[in-house]
Amino acid sequence: MPKVSEDHLAAGRREILDGARSCFAEFGYDGATVRRLEEATGLSRGAIFHHYRDKEALFLALAHEDAERMADVAAEQGLVQVMRDMLDRPDEFDWLGTRLEIARKLRTDKGFRDEWIARSADLESATLARLERQRTAGRLRDDLPPEVLVKYLDLVLDGLITRLASGQDITGLHAVLDLVEESVRRS
Amino acid sequence: MPKVSEDHLAAGRREILDGARSCFAEFGYDGATVRRLEEATGLSRGAIFHHYRDKEALFLALAHEDAERMADVAAEQGLVQVMRDMLDRPDEFDWLGTRLEIARKLRTDKGFRDEWIARSADLESATLARLERQRTAGRLRDDLPPEVLVKYLDLVLDGLITRLASGQDITGLHAVLDLVEESVRRS
Repeated sequence: MPKVSEDHLAAGRREILDGARSCFAEFGYDGATVRRLEEATGLSRGAIFHHYRDKEALFLALAHEDAERMADVAAEQGLVQVMRDMLDRPDEFDWLGTRLEIARKLRTDKGFRDEWIARSADLESATLARLERQRTAGRLRDDLPPEVLVKYLDLVLDGLITRLASGQDITGLHAVLDLVEESVRRS
Repeated sequence: MPKVSEDHLAAGRREILDGARSCFAEFGYDGATVRRLEEATGLSRGAIFHHYRDKEALFLALAHEDAERMADVAAEQGLVQVMRDMLDRPDEFDWLGTRLEIARKLRTDKGFRDEWIARSADLESATLARLERQRTAGRLRDDLPPEVLVKYLDLVLDGLITRLASGQDITGLHAVLDLVEESVRRS
């Protein structure tokens, strides 16, 4: 396939993903109908579903983008920095809300849950890899397996997403993240 | 009002709350239509909305019940024990899912959010009161204000609810809660 065509395809996907992200953010997962996705992307349903099998595939592609972006930060600066970035960028809260709305689907639709977990694997492995490096450098507590620390950080991240997505007060959460950070460090 | 009448009223409310809880758990907040609430409670819409102004009021009454029950445990044994109970009682997960589905409503409907926060105040004050007692007894770390510790525990609780509600793997979370507990204690 010639290069120009690949660029064209990638640009089309970018347009779809950006439009779909704001559509999900505004209307929620269920509310993002095919017609609204057409309006938000400026493309026909034919064009959209040429790139993504269905709405679910489109949503999972967005979740994958999130996980990749977070994984980049987590690999260099750790998962707590991912959380600090979230506290500092309230413009992403709308989209995060959609992650909560799919809880029922995650719980009841095993195929969807498996896909979701596969899409999030990058973030977990990036976090674990950084913890291993920190441990080797002697900065991490060594009385607990890194897996427990990853689960701990993941749990706090889920809490933070829930807070942000439901528009609850986030005052003082940087101080809480200091405590989280300290509790995985060598004392 | 004679006593028998009050008992009757309370029994009616109990019936409505129990039916509504399982209806919300099965169909979600939006899916719990008036007709489904009638089926689940075995009562007419007239009887239901005689006790509760509307679906929102009914939902908030259930949230209040949750907060009260959790506050009782938190007052005696702390918020970490509330979380341990959740890990040990998977039968309540279905209902917890509904708490996530209302994230959008919490974020965009200020009146609803204020009511929700008011309903949850018991739990926060019970947690804070216990932390103050633990601090007086010298069991709590004293380098951070109790308010930061409450926010920390609340954040972890939100994370746990999200995990449970979305049916994600909860293996090993008791070890994570050990770490959480330790991180608020005097070292």
